[in-house]
Amino acid sequence: MTITIVGLGLIGGSIGLELKTKRFADRIIGVDLNPVHRDIALERGLVDEVQKLVFAIQQSDIIILAIPVDAIRILLPFVLDQVTHQAVTDVGSTKYCITEQVKNHPKRGCYVASHPMAGTEFSGPEAAIPGLFSKKVGIICDMARSNQKALEAITNLYMALNMRLIFMNSKEHDLHTAYVSHISHLTSFALALTVLDKEKNDRNILNLASGGFDSTVRLAASSAEMWVPVFDQNRDHVIEVIDTYIAKMNLFKSYISEGENEKVGELIHAANQIQTTLTSNSWNKQ
Amino acid sequence: MTITIVGLGLIGGSIGLELKTKRFADRIIGVDLNPVHRDIALERGLVDEVQKLVFAIQQSDIIILAIPVDAIRILLPFVLDQVTHQAVTDVGSTKYCITEQVKNHPKRGCYVASHPMAGTEFSGPEAAIPGLFSKKVGIICDMARSNQKALEAITNLYMALNMRLIFMNSKEHDLHTAYVSHISHLTSFALALTVLDKEKNDRNILNLASGGFDSTVRLAASSAEMWVPVFDQNRDHVIEVIDTYIAKMNLFKSYISEGENEKVGELIHAANQIQTTLTSNSWNKQ
Repeated sequence: MTITIVGLGLIGGSIGLELKTKRFADRIIGVDLNPVHRDIALERGLVDEVQKLVFAIQQSDIIILAIPVDAIRILLPFVLDQVTHQAVTDVGSTKYCITEQVKNHPKRGCYVASHPMAGTEFSGPEAAIPGLFSKKVGIICDMARSNQKALEAITNLYMALNMRLIFMNSKEHDLHTAYVSHISHLTSFALALTVLDKEKNDRNILNLASGGFDSTVRLAASSAEMWVPVFDQNRDHVIEVIDTYIAKMNLFKSYISEGENEKVGELIHAANQIQTTLTSNSWNKQ
Repeated sequence: MTITIVGLGLIGGSIGLELKTKRFADRIIGVDLNPVHRDIALERGLVDEVQKLVFAIQQSDIIILAIPVDAIRILLPFVLDQVTHQAVTDVGSTKYCITEQVKNHPKRGCYVASHPMAGTEFSGPEAAIPGLFSKKVGIICDMARSNQKALEAITNLYMALNMRLIFMNSKEHDLHTAYVSHISHLTSFALALTVLDKEKNDRNILNLASGGFDSTVRLAASSAEMWVPVFDQNRDHVIEVIDTYIAKMNLFKSYISEGENEKVGELIHAANQIQTTLTSNSWNKQ
């Protein structure tokens, strides 16, 4: 089997690495507009060769779009125009905008909307790592709109990455990821900005940064190129979750400023429940 | 040397574990009001024996208060009343309220205000782990108010824990920890509450929780017993940092809702700088 990966960054590169290790593909073709990324991907063995997109599509059984969601929305219809028998998927963090873009495309059946819920705060082919997807959740959206053959190909692809598959529609996907992924990035960005603002006047403040700060601010290193279009495409849900989040922070603020310690304690006890919920969740038992 | 640790939780227990391993103390006495904590601490070998506070003080060279900051503020004057030659320290996450409480105490010189910047989201003696403090920052506050002998004893104690010491006054400490520690806990609690609110109506949302969510929400498991009095004692700084933080979130909200992608990108690029700052910071190079 020949696979084309479009976009040789953290996700695309890690997919290439894994599919080669698992011998899922005989040949992996990389496509990337950035010549530096192409060189690193070849050098690190993330792909076997690099080609222009149109030629790569013709020679492939599966095409994976691993580029920012704004680029996926533009490129996906063009890719579907070229396919005959191939299966196409994308790994974008939003699904509704992207699927809407191709809902009337004659080759819609060849496309499987998916989202492997895995990543790190780093980007580019140098950030690709083995085992990134193992035991993580892979989401397949709107499966009824894909044909049997494409669905089988993409399902097997995610099985080869050792992911646990779940199925939902694109709208549900976008709502849920706003809550369990997009907001986490926003809280990290805002935390970094808050501390950096203060640090301008006091260069020593970060001497004190400890493990707790590191973990909450880790995602603040995430790439704008990837995240700006995610927030843009998932605007309504993201705004909904920011509103709820700010309301919670305001609750802490008002109880703390009024010295309502019992109320602050109640909020913390309620927040503590997240750990029980996460631990009792079978997907997180590893 | 004999050391008394008051409070056999995560911090007190981990100090006991480490000081025994490093053979810094010949004998470690544990004091805790909770009989279950005393039993676990003895069983896990975190301390050699348990005693009542007054007897433990009489037999010790160093007394470490590792209890919530509201309890430290109440207990510290009482402990200083009992000391003759001993050095006393506390490991609380606030310093100004505590040091104010004993500023006119005749034995003030025997007390060294300190704060080891280390921890996990877990609590109790079962959460004590080896190596918790290694290469982390230990803060000593208001050193001019402690006598030479007490300062040497506590400095050596933190050296035995393999901490990197820095010195500042209590007010600076409380301002800086509001930014690099207290706010991280609040953002995690608020994130947990936001997601749990939604989850009431949709039990499946947490199926999707990925590594990014886990790391930003990790601190939401932290104990109310420890954190409520921290926010209470550090109220003014905590409110200042919550205000800045909410302003940053509102900035994201307004740019995202207006589709101002360029502005959102600028915020993210600015936030990305935190990683450079943290990495270039020698305290974080391990």
